[in-house]
This record gives sequence, C-alpha cells and structure tokens, in this order.
Amino acid sequence: MVAVYSLEDIKRALSDVEMTPHIEQGFVAYSNNEAVVPPVGELLFDDPPGDTHIKYGYIKGGDIYVVKIASGFYKNPEIGLSSSSGLMLVFSQKTGALQAVLLDEGYLTNVRTAIAGRIAAKYLAPKNIQAIGVIGTGIQARMQVEYLKEDTTCRDLFVWGRSDGKVAAYVRDMEKAGFKVTSVDSPALVAKNCNVIITTTPSTIPLLFADDILPGTHITAMGSDTDTKQELDANILGRADIVVGDSLSQCRERGEISKALAAGLLEEKNVHELGRFIADKSSRKIRDNSCISVADLTGVAVQDIQIAAAVCQQLAK
Amino acid sequence: MVAVYSLEDIKRALSDVEMTPHIEQGFVAYSNNEAVVPPVGELLFDDPPGDTHIKYGYIKGGDIYVVKIASGFYKNPEIGLSSSSGLMLVFSQKTGALQAVLLDEGYLTNVRTAIAGRIAAKYLAPKNIQAIGVIGTGIQARMQVEYLKEDTTCRDLFVWGRSDGKVAAYVRDMEKAGFKVTSVDSPALVAKNCNVIITTTPSTIPLLFADDILPGTHITAMGSDTDTKQELDANILGRADIVVGDSLSQCRERGEISKALAAGLLEEKNVHELGRFIADKSSRKIRDNSCISVADLTGVAVQDIQIAAAVCQQLAK
Repeated sequence: MVAVYSLEDIKRALSDVEMTPHIEQGFVAYSNNEAVVPPVGELLFDDPPGDTHIKYGYIKGGDIYVVKIASGFYKNPEIGLSSSSGLMLVFSQKTGALQAVLLDEGYLTNVRTAIAGRIAAKYLAPKNIQAIGVIGTGIQARMQVEYLKEDTTCRDLFVWGRSDGKVAAYVRDMEKAGFKVTSVDSPALVAKNCNVIITTTPSTIPLLFADDILPGTHITAMGSDTDTKQELDANILGRADIVVGDSLSQCRERGEISKALAAGLLEEKNVHELGRFIADKSSRKIRDNSCISVADLTGVAVQDIQIAAAVCQQLAK
Repeated sequence: MVAVYSLEDIKRALSDVEMTPHIEQGFVAYSNNEAVVPPVGELLFDDPPGDTHIKYGYIKGGDIYVVKIASGFYKNPEIGLSSSSGLMLVFSQKTGALQAVLLDEGYLTNVRTAIAGRIAAKYLAPKNIQAIGVIGTGIQARMQVEYLKEDTTCRDLFVWGRSDGKVAAYVRDMEKAGFKVTSVDSPALVAKNCNVIITTTPSTIPLLFADDILPGTHITAMGSDTDTKQELDANILGRADIVVGDSLSQCRERGEISKALAAGLLEEKNVHELGRFIADKSSRKIRDNSCISVADLTGVAVQDIQIAAAVCQQLAK
C-alpha cells in the first residue's frame, strides 16, 4: 500500500530540512515558467461558512506532481476544532501513481505560507524593523512572526484582533516566544506603531487604510486568497512604491491586488511577481527610507510542490 | 488518524451496495442544480504522455464533499502498470475535516464510469440489442460490457482495437465472461454489425463516421474527457436523433459534444443533459426503430460523490 504519513512523521521530517531556500527556488521556477500550475480549484460552503482550495501542479522535468487540499472553516474553533485542515498528495510524474499521502492536517500549508511571508520580508522589509505589527490572532498571526524572527532582531510586536479572548491568548503565546507584545484597539494603531505589518485575517472588508500606513512600511497581506476576502483598502496598493504578488495570474482573480486592479487604482504593469523579483535584481527598486511596499500572498501550488517534495525526500531516507 | 481504506476494503464494501440507483440519483441531483460541481481540474504531461483529472464537489445539504484524483498514463502497460490510477478523498461538509482516504487505485472511477454507461444504455439503447460493439480493448472496454450485461440478454460482442495482442487478450477475457466475441479489422466493421456501440479509447482522431452507423444504433462515447480527445466524427452527433451529455457545462468544453458544437454541426439546444433526461420523461423522444442516439460521457464529479458516499457508508457499518 502507498505510504501514508501522519502529522507527527511530517513534523519530524520537516525539522531536518531548511525549507526556505526550497520555497524561494519554487517561486523563481514558477516565474520562469518552469512550473505547471493550473488555476486554483475552489469549493465554497454557506452553512457553516467555509472554503476549500485545491492547488496542484508540477515542476517540469521533475519526478513528482502534487495535489493539495486545504480548507478553512472559520466557525470550527467554536466547536473546539482548528479552522484549517487539509492534506497533500504526492504522485509520480512518470506513471501518475500515488506515492505518498501526507496527512499534515493543513500544517504544511501553514509552514509554506509562513515561509512565503518570510521570503517577502527578506526582499521587501526595511532594514531596521522598529516593530512588527500583526492583524489577526490565528495560526498565521503566530507562524508568520515565528518565521520572521529568524531574520530580524526586532522583538517588539503589536497586535489587533476582534476577539479579546483570542488577543489575550495571542499575547500570552507570543510573550512566551520571546516578544514584547502590545495589543491595541484598532488596526490603525498597529499601523501607527509598526513598519512591518502582516495581515492574517479572513476579512471581507478592508481593515487597514492608506492614511494609517507610516512611510517606510512593508505590508505582507496573506489573509485574502479568494475574490471576496480583502484586508487592505485598495488605496494602499495604489499609493505603494512596490507591489509584489506571489502569482500574477492568481492575483488578477483573487487577493488584494485583484481589488486594486478592479478599482483602477493599480496597473498590472506595476505589479511584480515574487519569483521574478527574487531572480531579477535589476527589476528591484532601490528601497529608500520612505518606500512603502506590499506583498500580496494568495498561495501558489509551487509552494506545496516544493514542501511536499522536500518532506517526502526526507521521509524516504 | 483518519480512516485509510485499501482497494481490497473498497471492493468488499462495493460488493454489498447496489450502486446504479445512487449514480442515477446523482445525475438527477446534478441536473436539478442540487450539486456543487466546479470545473474539472486538469494536469497534462508530455513525456511520458498522461493526464490527471481532479473532480470535486458536493450535494447541497449533504454531509460530505469529495475530491477525486484520477490519472491516465497510457504508456504504463508497457512497463507492466495499469494506465489508470487514482484515489478519492471524503471530507466533512460541516468542518472541512478529512474523513476517509479511499485508495481505490482508480477502481471506483472505473466502476462509476461503467455504471454511467449502463444508465445511458438503460434510457437510450434499442430494446432489441442485436450485437454490442466495443472500440478499444482496455479496462472500460471490459467493464462497460460487464455492466451492460445486467440489462440485456445479448451476448454477441464485436471488438476493434489497434493492438493485435490486446485484442486477443480481450477476446479471451470476454469469452470467459460469457460472450461470443468477434474481432474485426476496423471500427467501421464494428458499427456495421452492432446497434449498441461503446467507444472507450483515448483517441484524438475520429474512429467512427456517420456513414458507418446503422439506423437504430445507440452509441455511448466515454473515451473522450479532454478537449483534445475525440472518437466520433462530429457528423455522427450532427445527424443523431438524440444527443445526451452527462454535464452540459463540461460537454461544452470537452468530449464529443464540444467538437460537434465547435464544428457547427450540433446546436446546444438539441443536447439533453443525462439527469434531466432521466427525470423528465416528457423531454424524452419516443425512440423508433431507426432512431440514432449518442451519449457523451465526460465523467462528472457527482458520480464520484455518490460512489464515495455509498462506499464510506458501507465501510463505516
């Protein structure tokens, strides 16, 4: 029977792999058209509200292809369950045969998403981070900061969330993780105190507005991955000096960039694709102290391909 | 950990379920807009040639949703492997959580595809089947006939295939299954001898032409499920008295009907959707002795939903 790995197996394997370079290479391959990544499959549910995304694809000339199913059911915490779940499937590119089932319960998606944020910050964040701001109090609100921690000495963290209880839990957890955490009463107050902001909510109305953003700020917006979710007012992208999307074709359809394009506040020619931005140094703007940048992460199957491939290789050792 | 079922488990469960009514109900639910079935996800491979289809969806108000991954790698038999493989995943519609992994190796797809053919023949085939014709010698060439056997006393079978070796194996197998099998040198000779024809190949050029088809013939074309595959010359559909597709939205994009529409030989208003054809007796043409009918089966996720649901229910007993 095909290899079926539990979350425990996967976490153990992952602890022995330095994933960030793999994901970074994945973005570059994607922007170089070396990856086959069809449009995201989507199932939407009304009652209870939820969405499931199916991301799939392969790197040309590789050994495997990957299908990833990830869902977010946002009322799950009310019944004591994680809002996110899912699995990844690894198949042979030569025979189509299923090789491994990674029952990661959405964990690999969380990791590759957090790593994409780390990569965006690596190329876009100001050199001197005065404080890190987080909008939201869920899994990514934690993991994005944990991964960012690798690349900065800044330990000042501001957070805003809708639920007082969740904010309190977040403050407790992140203080344990070594941060000095300040919870504030509005997203605007996060922006007023921070020059790196990570937005991590499933909001469908803008939470941050252009006038709130300090000069020199980098924003990683990773919460919106459908055509209905939106965390940033489109004027933020309109006024930003640098706008980077993880996938131009996806960002046309979903996420923050799609809203700003539709509002006529942003032109597609001014949107950089992350992999191209990484690979082509000449395309990168020289960042000055007042530069405002936005990275819009909708999640690309190439991240799933890379993390699944690396984990499978480790598990097979 | 989530329940993972092997092919053996699945076959055992399936043997205790009468699946045909479930699949038939699925088609009806689909045509009544009670099913959510987004467009098929597709990955194509060049070297070796292969395709993977991802079909997914749910019946509104049900307990589960299903994601099915099925691939066809047509050179696999050269290295001793089955050309088709795959699995089905069953998730909760209430929490998104994975409930069961059905490692069916493509078997459930084969079964639900064969059952769709049986259903098409039930509503469309002439009352007196003089001989059954099969184009192709693969898995579906066998299973379609096996399932059709339930509803007819006809045991005369004509077959055409490209490979002499595969034809010989097919003849041997189907004679064991109780048929009198005649292999012929061309698809046209199958048509000249049969008033029910099933086409089961991954051909990309037409194999059957309008002038070959006897009056009173029913054709189930199930081989073409992409926009490049085609088994029937479009004139067959143009001249047919009844054309039924399993999914109008899919048949616009892929399969035989899409070719005939694109060629201007068929109008969409003359295409019936299978579920509607089953449910709405008034829409059915009275079949006379000279009536030619075509059922174009591209494979709909609702079949996967129904078979996965029934198998899971049986396995949980």
